[in-house]
Amino acid sequence: MSFEPQKINGKFKGKDIISLDQFSPKDISILFKLTKKMKTIAYNAKPSSVLSGKIVTLLFYEPSSRTFGSFGASVKQLGGQTVDILNPQVFSSVSKGESLEDTIRVFEAYSDAIVIRHSVAGTAKIAAQAAKFVPIINAGDGVGEHPTQTLLDLYTIQEKEGKLDSLTGVMVGDLLNGRTVHSLLKGLSLYKKNTVYLLSPDELKLSKEDFQKFSSSGVKLIEIESEKEIPQDANFWYWTRVQKERLQPQSLKNYENLKTRFIVNKDLVEKKAGKKTIIMHPLPRVGEIDPEIDEDPRAVYLSSQVRNGMYVRMALLSLVLKSS
Amino acid sequence: MSFEPQKINGKFKGKDIISLDQFSPKDISILFKLTKKMKTIAYNAKPSSVLSGKIVTLLFYEPSSRTFGSFGASVKQLGGQTVDILNPQVFSSVSKGESLEDTIRVFEAYSDAIVIRHSVAGTAKIAAQAAKFVPIINAGDGVGEHPTQTLLDLYTIQEKEGKLDSLTGVMVGDLLNGRTVHSLLKGLSLYKKNTVYLLSPDELKLSKEDFQKFSSSGVKLIEIESEKEIPQDANFWYWTRVQKERLQPQSLKNYENLKTRFIVNKDLVEKKAGKKTIIMHPLPRVGEIDPEIDEDPRAVYLSSQVRNGMYVRMALLSLVLKSS
Amino acid sequence: MSFEPQKINGKFKGKDIISLDQFSPKDISILFKLTKKMKTIAYNAKPSSVLSGKIVTLLFYEPSSRTFGSFGASVKQLGGQTVDILNPQVFSSVSKGESLEDTIRVFEAYSDAIVIRHSVAGTAKIAAQAAKFVPIINAGDGVGEHPTQTLLDLYTIQEKEGKLDSLTGVMVGDLLNGRTVHSLLKGLSLYKKNTVYLLSPDELKLSKEDFQKFSSSGVKLIEIESEKEIPQDANFWYWTRVQKERLQPQSLKNYENLKTRFIVNKDLVEKKAGKKTIIMHPLPRVGEIDPEIDEDPRAVYLSSQVRNGMYVRMALLSLVLKSS
Repeated sequence: MSFEPQKINGKFKGKDIISLDQFSPKDISILFKLTKKMKTIAYNAKPSSVLSGKIVTLLFYEPSSRTFGSFGASVKQLGGQTVDILNPQVFSSVSKGESLEDTIRVFEAYSDAIVIRHSVAGTAKIAAQAAKFVPIINAGDGVGEHPTQTLLDLYTIQEKEGKLDSLTGVMVGDLLNGRTVHSLLKGLSLYKKNTVYLLSPDELKLSKEDFQKFSSSGVKLIEIESEKEIPQDANFWYWTRVQKERLQPQSLKNYENLKTRFIVNKDLVEKKAGKKTIIMHPLPRVGEIDPEIDEDPRAVYLSSQVRNGMYVRMALLSLVLKSS
Repeated sequence: MSFEPQKINGKFKGKDIISLDQFSPKDISILFKLTKKMKTIAYNAKPSSVLSGKIVTLLFYEPSSRTFGSFGASVKQLGGQTVDILNPQVFSSVSKGESLEDTIRVFEAYSDAIVIRHSVAGTAKIAAQAAKFVPIINAGDGVGEHPTQTLLDLYTIQEKEGKLDSLTGVMVGDLLNGRTVHSLLKGLSLYKKNTVYLLSPDELKLSKEDFQKFSSSGVKLIEIESEKEIPQDANFWYWTRVQKERLQPQSLKNYENLKTRFIVNKDLVEKKAGKKTIIMHPLPRVGEIDPEIDEDPRAVYLSSQVRNGMYVRMALLSLVLKSS
Repeated sequence: MSFEPQKINGKFKGKDIISLDQFSPKDISILFKLTKKMKTIAYNAKPSSVLSGKIVTLLFYEPSSRTFGSFGASVKQLGGQTVDILNPQVFSSVSKGESLEDTIRVFEAYSDAIVIRHSVAGTAKIAAQAAKFVPIINAGDGVGEHPTQTLLDLYTIQEKEGKLDSLTGVMVGDLLNGRTVHSLLKGLSLYKKNTVYLLSPDELKLSKEDFQKFSSSGVKLIEIESEKEIPQDANFWYWTRVQKERLQPQSLKNYENLKTRFIVNKDLVEKKAGKKTIIMHPLPRVGEIDPEIDEDPRAVYLSSQVRNGMYVRMALLSLVLKSS
């Protein structure tokens, strides 16, 4: 397939949002300026009319209550409405053998934009290629991309650090399979002088290929073996869940050990975190962050990181769908 | 768990609504005054803006089309919007092992309130404890509580009788397992001089413990054995379905006999009901009320009792979420 | 059942919409005039308030993402809101044995109209009979009726041809089982001097009974045996999918041959279609139209035919629910 989504180049209106590759640092800067304003809109008593009269179809082939809820709330915070299509593959038309292309053509007739979630990488691109009139927004396509997740992670870091370059970060957990890890590394590679320490069980290390790729794209990567080697006062920690559903059979037997090999708890935070180190997690967590630090102001995974997801999506929808 | 939801004490704004225990007669009176006004809003041609700009997440772990529809319509009648999350336990994050607390924290980031339905008693309280910013409203948690159901039953009685004290009622059917029966008795015990006649198959009598509890809390309870003993001209009849799913094995064998042991039909209504006796049922019914009396003006189970559910929920949401 | 839905007779307000039989050519003309205006509303930057403050319950016992999306978008394009009830038969109340009549009575208490989809013919009529206060709109009940599908097909023809009489059409595919074929023939029989050529595998011919019925109601029907006999320059082609799920066992064995016995492709279009012949399909298609003609301006199945579905539904909802 020769189709590639267009670069943003400062112009969001009407564009498909399929991949982080479409964004330059300047595009991200435009988006994040608006994201900051969205916070005000979301908490304003007065309803917004930014998307009033607009209909966004949420076409979720794979259930994801979190992303579904975040996109749905984003549209509605801005005064728009959604048409919610969950699991269309068990709905009649698709189950009767309809192609994805036809499904997209039908739903674009009913909506101003389509947000698509699918389990198969590349699906969002196929959808974008099929759509003739309305923009397609990728809400995660399997091991492919989930650009708004990466953008919310980047926004959360920028909000706290005031910048996206010259940062020191720590990424921990399932670095082999975690899509968010790969995407965030890609995002950080758009900026200069970033250093990321990588900590994971041997079986779940970043692949050599990826290590090479991200290193050569400008992020300094340093693999470490234990919590002891975590640098003092990093700008951010990015902890992740071991992706049980993607483990190799031999690793799966060892899952119970792997999943909580590295845990964030009070002890670790006291020893290694600086006063401004933010503690992030893409969620869901299943034991790798002890709830005892949930109320620590540096722990953002259940607070600003989640809310920023909605603000980033509000800003993006607003730019892509704006009337003027 | 030491957490207890706050008493209303005349102030609804921002409070979790978990249990009828939070309400005093004065609170109920405030709520019911507004409930009456909601009728006008619902039938007004002009759209309401009471909840405009507000998002209420309907987080239903257990399907209940009736309660889901009633809450959804309540929000929308007031100009608000909902984010509908059905069966999140089969959605990815929860199925990956996420705790209820984390799920609540995530969804509160997207909404102004969360309405939760769950099959396990006590879940709404856990949700309320987890939420940091937005009120939790219990839409039924198993054999636990379903406060808006009780409030709508009380409102229906008050609307017709003009009061909630000095009433004579009849409760019939599965008095052992019916949650609505227990809750309504609790509600009536907040007021003085109420008498309730109890009629049920032997296997489905109110437990001795409950009989004792409600008697000592002020409701006069009188067990009767047959329809003949139903008092003339009671203020209300409250008929209920035999809860097949909760029967003991020995009773289950006898289900076909039990379920229609006591039936409301024209004959019974003519013999026992007064001109103003209202005939209630929490629905669904499966044979215990003959459709031949559906159009009797005293039969409110398919008319005002259902609509009052929406008005009570509108009033409650309005009080809990009001901007001013 | 003696209940029959009322004829429209120029007055849509408050009426159930169950069957095409309710419509006279004059009613269709009123509807289509408004349908044309709806296009402007849908693409207007300003939100419509035609249904503002109105709630439409979408009660779908059978999944149909296409019809669900089209009705949902129609309501929301007009500023109304929906309560989405999918698969209520697995939701508690219905699964506990509640009758359809009771379910309808409950949901009408929450809404200004109910759109119902069901797999069993006749269900929409039963629903209409049960409802006391709000109109019921049939969104397809099995092999029964799906009036808005027929209306959108008729509108698509009228939009392109400027009339609904004196037309020459071709209907191809599963003429035995396709509901849309039967309904469109019924619709065309309301007008004069229409001729329809019928092309299908022997096993899937229009039944003799139906051939007789439609012939005597005024449409001239001509059965043909091969693509060669398709008349030059017909006004419309209406291609349909072989309904695998309804094939007789002996035909099912032959499904792979049957399903693509007659295919629209560039070759056929060049040989047989006129400059203004429109190519229609009710969708989904599973091979009977080659995607190579999707971009042909005469191919309307993925463009105006789909969008007209939304416009017709907007117009119908607007007429049935109008405040004034």
